[in-house]
Amino acid sequence: MTYLFYLVPVAAIIALLFAWIFFRQMMKESEGTVTMKEIAQYVREGAMAYLKQQYKVVVIVFIILAILFAILAYGFGVQNPWVPFAFLTGGFFSGLAGFVGMKTATYASARTANATMRSLNSGLKIAFRSGAVMGLTVVGLGLLDIAIWWSVLKIFYDPSDAQNLVIITTTMLTFGMGASTQALFARVGGGIYTKAADVGADIVGKVEQDIPEDDPRNPATIADNVGDNVGDVAGMGADLYESYCGSILATMALGASAFFADGTAVQIRAILAPMMIAAIGVILSIIGIYVVRTKEGASLQDLLGSLSRGTNLAAGLIAVLAFGVFYLLGFPNWWQLALSVLSGLLAGVIIGKVTEYYTSHSYKPTQKLAEAAETGSATVVINGVGLGMRSTAIPVITICVAILLSYGFASGFVFKASTLSMGLYGISIAAVGMLSTLGITLATDAYGPIADNAGGNAQMSELDPSVREKTDILDALGNTTAATGKGFAIGSAALTALALLASYIEEIKIGFSHMAAKGGEMAAEFARMSHASITDIIEHYDITLMNPRVLVGVFIGSMMAFLFCGLTMQAVGRAASKMVVEVRRQFREIAGILEGKQRPDYTSCVRISTKAAQHEMIFPSLLAIIVPMLVGIILGPAGVVGLLTGGLGAGFVLAIFLANSGGAWDNAKKYVEEGHHGGKNSPAHKATIVGDTVGDPFKDTSGPSLNILIKLMSMVSIVMAGLTVMIH
Amino acid sequence: MTYLFYLVPVAAIIALLFAWIFFRQMMKESEGTVTMKEIAQYVREGAMAYLKQQYKVVVIVFIILAILFAILAYGFGVQNPWVPFAFLTGGFFSGLAGFVGMKTATYASARTANATMRSLNSGLKIAFRSGAVMGLTVVGLGLLDIAIWWSVLKIFYDPSDAQNLVIITTTMLTFGMGASTQALFARVGGGIYTKAADVGADIVGKVEQDIPEDDPRNPATIADNVGDNVGDVAGMGADLYESYCGSILATMALGASAFFADGTAVQIRAILAPMMIAAIGVILSIIGIYVVRTKEGASLQDLLGSLSRGTNLAAGLIAVLAFGVFYLLGFPNWWQLALSVLSGLLAGVIIGKVTEYYTSHSYKPTQKLAEAAETGSATVVINGVGLGMRSTAIPVITICVAILLSYGFASGFVFKASTLSMGLYGISIAAVGMLSTLGITLATDAYGPIADNAGGNAQMSELDPSVREKTDILDALGNTTAATGKGFAIGSAALTALALLASYIEEIKIGFSHMAAKGGEMAAEFARMSHASITDIIEHYDITLMNPRVLVGVFIGSMMAFLFCGLTMQAVGRAASKMVVEVRRQFREIAGILEGKQRPDYTSCVRISTKAAQHEMIFPSLLAIIVPMLVGIILGPAGVVGLLTGGLGAGFVLAIFLANSGGAWDNAKKYVEEGHHGGKNSPAHKATIVGDTVGDPFKDTSGPSLNILIKLMSMVSIVMAGLTVMIH
Repeated sequence: MTYLFYLVPVAAIIALLFAWIFFRQMMKESEGTVTMKEIAQYVREGAMAYLKQQYKVVVIVFIILAILFAILAYGFGVQNPWVPFAFLTGGFFSGLAGFVGMKTATYASARTANATMRSLNSGLKIAFRSGAVMGLTVVGLGLLDIAIWWSVLKIFYDPSDAQNLVIITTTMLTFGMGASTQALFARVGGGIYTKAADVGADIVGKVEQDIPEDDPRNPATIADNVGDNVGDVAGMGADLYESYCGSILATMALGASAFFADGTAVQIRAILAPMMIAAIGVILSIIGIYVVRTKEGASLQDLLGSLSRGTNLAAGLIAVLAFGVFYLLGFPNWWQLALSVLSGLLAGVIIGKVTEYYTSHSYKPTQKLAEAAETGSATVVINGVGLGMRSTAIPVITICVAILLSYGFASGFVFKASTLSMGLYGISIAAVGMLSTLGITLATDAYGPIADNAGGNAQMSELDPSVREKTDILDALGNTTAATGKGFAIGSAALTALALLASYIEEIKIGFSHMAAKGGEMAAEFARMSHASITDIIEHYDITLMNPRVLVGVFIGSMMAFLFCGLTMQAVGRAASKMVVEVRRQFREIAGILEGKQRPDYTSCVRISTKAAQHEMIFPSLLAIIVPMLVGIILGPAGVVGLLTGGLGAGFVLAIFLANSGGAWDNAKKYVEEGHHGGKNSPAHKATIVGDTVGDPFKDTSGPSLNILIKLMSMVSIVMAGLTVMIH
Repeated sequence: MTYLFYLVPVAAIIALLFAWIFFRQMMKESEGTVTMKEIAQYVREGAMAYLKQQYKVVVIVFIILAILFAILAYGFGVQNPWVPFAFLTGGFFSGLAGFVGMKTATYASARTANATMRSLNSGLKIAFRSGAVMGLTVVGLGLLDIAIWWSVLKIFYDPSDAQNLVIITTTMLTFGMGASTQALFARVGGGIYTKAADVGADIVGKVEQDIPEDDPRNPATIADNVGDNVGDVAGMGADLYESYCGSILATMALGASAFFADGTAVQIRAILAPMMIAAIGVILSIIGIYVVRTKEGASLQDLLGSLSRGTNLAAGLIAVLAFGVFYLLGFPNWWQLALSVLSGLLAGVIIGKVTEYYTSHSYKPTQKLAEAAETGSATVVINGVGLGMRSTAIPVITICVAILLSYGFASGFVFKASTLSMGLYGISIAAVGMLSTLGITLATDAYGPIADNAGGNAQMSELDPSVREKTDILDALGNTTAATGKGFAIGSAALTALALLASYIEEIKIGFSHMAAKGGEMAAEFARMSHASITDIIEHYDITLMNPRVLVGVFIGSMMAFLFCGLTMQAVGRAASKMVVEVRRQFREIAGILEGKQRPDYTSCVRISTKAAQHEMIFPSLLAIIVPMLVGIILGPAGVVGLLTGGLGAGFVLAIFLANSGGAWDNAKKYVEEGHHGGKNSPAHKATIVGDTVGDPFKDTSGPSLNILIKLMSMVSIVMAGLTVMIH
């Protein structure tokens, strides 16, 4: 059975190979006119320069944390000696995934614009294949890292010992922490960068001077395009790398512990299952990517159909093949576990559809929001906030049903302590199912910003307006297909966070085994606790909802979600204000900009965004690492579980609210621009621009960072569990 | 010792007596000119008309719920037969408190304006004493209702039986549910009414037509002033009646159960303690109110000092006298329990100060927010949202410390299952301490809207602008002193909610005793469970954080807070848009309004607000009642505890965020109006008006309703516990 494992590295290498092929194909295309090349070069340089700055900060944080972990491992002996290394590789690969994605995107934008001049279809192909480079790089690197660590640790820890399997898989979780840390910095830094530029550019450009988006006369326009790359592409790459690996690693860890009593053979198949599903998902993703082929002269409907066909095919096949995987691995409850996966997939689809309903201007909610623009920007903002908050209901209920079903199928619908581990494993494997076809869903997601940037390039290069119109169609198309991907990302984050909560308890037990190994009069008691059940640990630390430490933890967890959003939002607000002041200054002081006779000073705006992102990302990100440590030290495991639960509850709902409010404002503006309620440049249009601008940090800075925050807090707690046990 | 109880009805009657005296004193004052009288009459009639409409809806809901409870009590036998009656009186008294407060306020506004013409000091005196009418009515009616029910139920349930004391006190909690239900309708309905009018009036009046606040030419101005009365006065009255009674009742219930094993004598003193502290607080409040006396010709600083002297004196004395109360009642750990109360009081003061820091324009955060107005309304909104989210950190940490300290002092800092009840009692009594001086803190809170309305009357009656300036000073003064009161209200809500969580578990036990009484083969087992400890119940229903039902409950609870806010916010947005359309129509169609030659049609605007409030309050309020019932039926006690925890965690933080964002926007606007960043009618001013308008439903509709929502969900769960036990 273990030979099946080799499918994992093979799938990883195939994914990277296809990413390379798609990259080469894209590079063969022409970048277009001299101006197009020049602008692409500008954006590429700005993006790389920023990324270099960001990595400098991140490297320092990683070094400090690695030293801390080394001290805990080698000094205090409360941690596994592999932790510092696993942590570093996770961070490295996550950063690499973002880097490759961004590199590709910055090469692809001018090429997409140029190809769009030929036909819409050519543009789609280049943009989508470039998105696929990112998608396949993320899953390829993720699976590769997982396969390598699994192979290496098996050499040092004999896998025929049940306890060793638990140690291997929980050690691997720390590589997840590395990925999460990198992802948080990438999302927060990138998010602040891109939205400071975007908001600044919009306020002066669109609201005050009535010049269109991406107009070369706007000094912030290069910074805005750089931002799309560092935020939407590099940030998203690191983010989804984290989600992807996190879901697989958490399930492996739960698999090792859930089937602890059943012997190593059973454990190993539970560990292999998530890797196998992910590996098969990679192959299906590549098939799906090839399905996205349209005839020349395809209509918009054809394009949309072709994109959805690719993602639907991959998702449909994984649902079917999941039955095969569990059967092949010899699970007695193979079809029930497959139904758990199916519950997760269905939940993802529903959340995606609901997201689309609330945020697309083809539906009532966003149309009503646009209508509110007739009475000014204040009612647009109030209604948008209301819409976002309201839109949380169905996704949350969907996720709740998915939790109960995936737990229920896996545990035979017995909600007792005895079936707890099995049920949690079911929840966790459902998350893996949702992300298994990330190769293609991420392609549909990442292709949006590429099309967006192509449009920016077209506008700045002063190409024929028809090119911009076509790239706008591509961009809008991407938004629609990306909805399902986003549904999977949100849903899987919640499920993975639950799995990590369970892994935390497992890690507490390993903490006890470290304490036992150190000897002393309590050694026997520690050894006993290291083999306790989840229920025993809960009892030992009184992790019930009447324990004031748990309740205090819940309060702090909820607060963390809000505090984190507040910090990142204010960072965008501050940086955007600086940007506005600078753009106004240039319009005032540099003669001839508005007439197009004089080039504005793009670099000063790039500098503002870079500096803001670099400074402002540090505090909120560190907070996400330090608070769980402090709660663990002060309040012990009971407080930590409360913290994670509170953070998950409030953070998950807050994330949906922010994403949907932002999305609805964005599309309400587009709806007005299409000619409703007075159309472009009407008072209603100005009101929706205010809404859109407010929504920018909602949906692209604070919102997406929350999912990472939730998981990073869990990962930190897991890694620090040894220290917590030593103290409490 | 039980003779001490008589202090409670005596204090209640004294409070009502002084309320009557202050009311008579106020009524003796002149209402001023004919126009002033006329406008006051208009506002009074509008307010009463609306309240009548609101009560009609509420009465229907109460009848339906009372019938449901009657069926559960008499039909299924899973509930105490007194429940329907207790529920009805709670609703009645809560409504009465709001009604009396509003009646007083509508009589006081013109009189305050008139007195202000004489001197600032006279204005302060009338407004403050009228606020005191409301403060004393709330505490008087609250204590009276508590005293009556305690006396009545003692006749029917022999208090020398320990179990009977638990039954009496948990039955009394259902009167809390009545109060909460009434309060939620009052807050939501009043909040929608007032903010629809306010937002509508501001958008057309201030933003579009450049006419000042409360200008008689604005058709929405009467609706706006009516709104201040139904929202800020009647809504607040019902709200704080609920908080006040809720904290006392929850503590009584916990007292009965925490000391169950120690015999009835000990139980009774634990039941008496919260009533005693409240009764002493009433006397201290009256003393405090009399301290608020200033010499004629007092400076603003004197006035502020005199107001704070009143509240500080009352709060300081209750801290000292708490030691005496616990000592007199014979608690062995009397000084520790007093320290629990002190922790709560200190937390309230700190939260108040932090609120002031974040929302007053004397400090950096709001000044910075005003600065963001220079770059437009979008940056004002982004920064304000960020500020509010960020401002949640210190209040949450303060409350966490207060929870741990008040629990710690009461339990001797032993965080074990054995001391759980004692610790929870400590948390609960701390909440009582915070609200004990509500008589005076509510006076400083309620006097703000009265001064505000006086200003409205002055403006509409076209009195000398100096009168408006003076009432503005009074209003601003009220905002500063009210901060502490708000700190107490927020803090106590969190602590009371925790106490209610514990009471829920107690009620589960009573549910078992009902089941046991019904006989059947499980009767013995049910009887055993009815005497179980909190820990046993937790174990029985697996109320731990790994139970998927608990986690699902947490998700739903968090979501409820957001959904509820989303619904109320959209209600305001929709109604405000209608108001804007109507006001614009009047300006367009009725000639001569803007020149002041023609009176606008005030009643059509009043009608829009009334209709909107009446329709839109129903769904969110019913949701708050139905969801906990459904969760109980579907997911059982584990799900309910999750729901309440999630709702408390997310709701508490969300409430602080909304209140502080709203407050900061309001004061940022005032800061600009004082001449900063361009002063009145500058672009920055317009930007802050957008912020202020967005903040209106944040701070006056959705935010304040959340505290009630949290507690109402707990109360509903408690009342429905019997049914839940029958099913699960």
